[in-house]
Amino acid sequence: MAPALMRLALALAVAVVGCCAARQPGGRVDLWPMPASVSRGARTLYVARDLKLSTAGSGYKDGKAILADAFRRMVAVIQLDHAINGSYHGLPVLAGVNVAVRSPDDELKFGVDESYKLTVPATGSPLYARIEAQTVFGAFHALETFSQLCYFDFVLSVTGLHWAPWTIVDKPRFPYRGLLIDTARHYLPVPVIKSVIDSMVYSKLNVLHWHIVDEQSFPLEIPSYPKLSNGAYSYSEKYTINDAIDIVQYAEKRGVNVLAEIDVPGHAGSWGVGYPSLWPSATCQQPLDVSNDFTFKVIDGILSDFSKVFKFKFVHLGGDEVDTSCWTTTPRIKSWLVQHGMNESDAYRYFVLKAQKIAISHGYEIINWEETFNNFGDKLDRKTVVHNWLGGGVAEKVVSAGLRCIVSNQDKWYLDHLDATWEGFYMNEPLTNIYNPEQQKLILGGEVCMWGEHIDASDIQQTIWPRAAAAAERLWTPVEKLAKDTTAVTARLAHFRCLLNERGVAAAPLAGYGRTAPSEPGSCVRQ
Amino acid sequence: MAPALMRLALALAVAVVGCCAARQPGGRVDLWPMPASVSRGARTLYVARDLKLSTAGSGYKDGKAILADAFRRMVAVIQLDHAINGSYHGLPVLAGVNVAVRSPDDELKFGVDESYKLTVPATGSPLYARIEAQTVFGAFHALETFSQLCYFDFVLSVTGLHWAPWTIVDKPRFPYRGLLIDTARHYLPVPVIKSVIDSMVYSKLNVLHWHIVDEQSFPLEIPSYPKLSNGAYSYSEKYTINDAIDIVQYAEKRGVNVLAEIDVPGHAGSWGVGYPSLWPSATCQQPLDVSNDFTFKVIDGILSDFSKVFKFKFVHLGGDEVDTSCWTTTPRIKSWLVQHGMNESDAYRYFVLKAQKIAISHGYEIINWEETFNNFGDKLDRKTVVHNWLGGGVAEKVVSAGLRCIVSNQDKWYLDHLDATWEGFYMNEPLTNIYNPEQQKLILGGEVCMWGEHIDASDIQQTIWPRAAAAAERLWTPVEKLAKDTTAVTARLAHFRCLLNERGVAAAPLAGYGRTAPSEPGSCVRQ
Repeated sequence: MAPALMRLALALAVAVVGCCAARQPGGRVDLWPMPASVSRGARTLYVARDLKLSTAGSGYKDGKAILADAFRRMVAVIQLDHAINGSYHGLPVLAGVNVAVRSPDDELKFGVDESYKLTVPATGSPLYARIEAQTVFGAFHALETFSQLCYFDFVLSVTGLHWAPWTIVDKPRFPYRGLLIDTARHYLPVPVIKSVIDSMVYSKLNVLHWHIVDEQSFPLEIPSYPKLSNGAYSYSEKYTINDAIDIVQYAEKRGVNVLAEIDVPGHAGSWGVGYPSLWPSATCQQPLDVSNDFTFKVIDGILSDFSKVFKFKFVHLGGDEVDTSCWTTTPRIKSWLVQHGMNESDAYRYFVLKAQKIAISHGYEIINWEETFNNFGDKLDRKTVVHNWLGGGVAEKVVSAGLRCIVSNQDKWYLDHLDATWEGFYMNEPLTNIYNPEQQKLILGGEVCMWGEHIDASDIQQTIWPRAAAAAERLWTPVEKLAKDTTAVTARLAHFRCLLNERGVAAAPLAGYGRTAPSEPGSCVRQ
Repeated sequence: MAPALMRLALALAVAVVGCCAARQPGGRVDLWPMPASVSRGARTLYVARDLKLSTAGSGYKDGKAILADAFRRMVAVIQLDHAINGSYHGLPVLAGVNVAVRSPDDELKFGVDESYKLTVPATGSPLYARIEAQTVFGAFHALETFSQLCYFDFVLSVTGLHWAPWTIVDKPRFPYRGLLIDTARHYLPVPVIKSVIDSMVYSKLNVLHWHIVDEQSFPLEIPSYPKLSNGAYSYSEKYTINDAIDIVQYAEKRGVNVLAEIDVPGHAGSWGVGYPSLWPSATCQQPLDVSNDFTFKVIDGILSDFSKVFKFKFVHLGGDEVDTSCWTTTPRIKSWLVQHGMNESDAYRYFVLKAQKIAISHGYEIINWEETFNNFGDKLDRKTVVHNWLGGGVAEKVVSAGLRCIVSNQDKWYLDHLDATWEGFYMNEPLTNIYNPEQQKLILGGEVCMWGEHIDASDIQQTIWPRAAAAAERLWTPVEKLAKDTTAVTARLAHFRCLLNERGVAAAPLAGYGRTAPSEPGSCVRQ
């Protein structure tokens, strides 16, 4: 057995802490992220075990049953952590939820209306909560909010819901609220990716940025160029194109878009395993050979295949950290540069712009990492979204230049930086120094990045959570409702991390750096 | 983006590694733990998407559908990681599995027959695998073994099975193959406990030792003494008695017994939060007051409640690390000792033996930590199983004394010791220095222990796996088939850890100490 440390002190602490707080009625509104507007009353209701979904007044037909499925999942989540077997006799019972969605459309377009109104009346018979939303995706958010109102009542062994009547009116501050995963540095099995998507829904993140490929491996099968996945780590560490379709559909059914990335011309060494002519040479493998038409044919093939799978408005073309020295040390490419009157930076620009044109020809708008903007921002296609990562101060330059921007400054929003604290994630403001409302609109949102050098299926969830949730509130909640001082939200975020744990998500303690083991025995909400 | 390190080296490594090994046909039998007897052929079969379960010749009626459920779970697991949507046209298809269980009984008794025979013929129409087992629990193990024969075929997009015909005859070396979890140092939500049970099944562990309570918290509601759970960390960090029933049933349906522990008289400070008279005094709270009849009434009440919930043959009564100084510094107890002619060690023995009698009166046999044996082994009830933990060399003394023993020597089998490597887990032999066959039979098996001081929902799975699996093979596989040198099993265990990842279990890399993040980008099987 483990050494019995600090017996007396801890026993006393237990005596003081006793039976209290978490998930009990209390003063705090325990919702994460905080909605735009919340009002509540004082009555406790009990949520029927067989909570009903009704859709009176809805203009949405739910032909694919995505709403019915989301409702079923929500009920499963609120009944997950304890056996619900008490009696409802004589209790005020919430019998169901009526969901009225105005739009018949359920295509998950970028910028789709995600707003909702959730009301839980205190009286009525039968008693139904009401969700009103423009789209089914707003209704999804309402269901998540509803689930967070519920708790398990230990006295009655049923699901309770405090403080009815509730009126919650809500919508996101930014349309792009992303999380990057990296399947090139380590392969992530499909069930792991799906569980990441599940967990994103709990804090209303809505874009999974899938950094599929990098120099280390090429795990996705590309029908047009089947040898590309020879660059996978192993026979089994691959995704079929049907796996990709499955992941996209899984995400869309949960209101999450999948942004696919191929990072060119750098970060692409694995492409040449199957097609060595993509390398400048066998000993100098990156960036992709700018002088070879085949390079652009392959990009065209990939993006053609992508366009049948990844239906999001954007594709990410990378463009970062391009060390062009292989181009000048390889005689064939050096001659080509001379012949075309280009220096290395001209060729870098030439490559990025040519790849952009190919993406546009397949119907995509483009996202590129910020080096493309920093080096030749005025040449980028006007459909470009610039993805900031190097540090602060870039977004204001991007929007001044009239381009759109996604914020991921590494000092604050890189999850692989274990020394980046949740407080830093929370306080990182995408609109810093941007005051012009028209320019503010060009900030689509932000994204936290889970780079995979030291991340695999064993440590991804606890490295993402709870820090990603801190950023999620920054991206969702109206700026005037965000805490000025993170100590004001510590307890609420701790509660949310415990809720994630109860839902089976391995969110780490708040204390200390990223992915820290609990430092000592104690309550979940105090770690 | 993350710095582009070691580009050339890694690109070359990718080129060399390329598309290979894992889950592909190869020389290795990739089963974990290794069965007692394996023979195989050379034909590849394809596993029908709608694999059928038949039970011709079975004496087992499956009234509770636990076999049907286990089969359904097995099919879900083999189809989990990739979209199965290829054509089976013209392929040799395995249409189903016939499971013939001889015993009609499905009570999960200790020492139940867990043996099985699994055959997969290479020809036949329709082609069915065959499982024969004495009990449904042996059949469960056969289903797990079957699932590990399957792989995803990337060319055909269907499930493949290499090397038919297979004949596997198998049974466990030890009847007790345990894993301890600790819900007192940190509360573990019910879904987390269930996922631990799920993962145990994959390596054929069969006892979940639930260290429910300790000095820090008392998370389980006890109907006979409802204030005991006032010692929980918070309102929500509790289990209802119905949760305990739910967990026990969930485990039993998977062939896993739940061993409940209350650790007395030490490690019990949290009991007095609800009933302060169990403490020697408010400032000296452990061990439980030996002089107070109420102490034993409470133990009796708990064990009475346990006997309705925890149906395993054994209950664990702890008995370790008892610092009796509170007994002599509390005047009331000191007087009682004098009055009864006892010194501190007499009182410790008195307490343990009295608790044993109470447990026996409720139909249990007892497990106690080894200090009870070390201090007064000759006085222990003969129904006692001694649970070794302090180090090696104890088991041989226990069985020499004619008592039974479970091995958990902390230097090798404590999962919270992060410096204990998987190699150490693998090589730890429970029968060390025990040569007499009758004495060997007294070693019931062993248990790996996941103490919770630094473990919560965020890090439990990757601290348990893959190291617990290394011990699981030691406990399952015939000693003559165990590797003498762990390098002989590294690749097979790495494969198994990747399989766990594919099933959504956050098993950590093998390299380095426990719960280590991957040190660099690379294939799952090489970390």
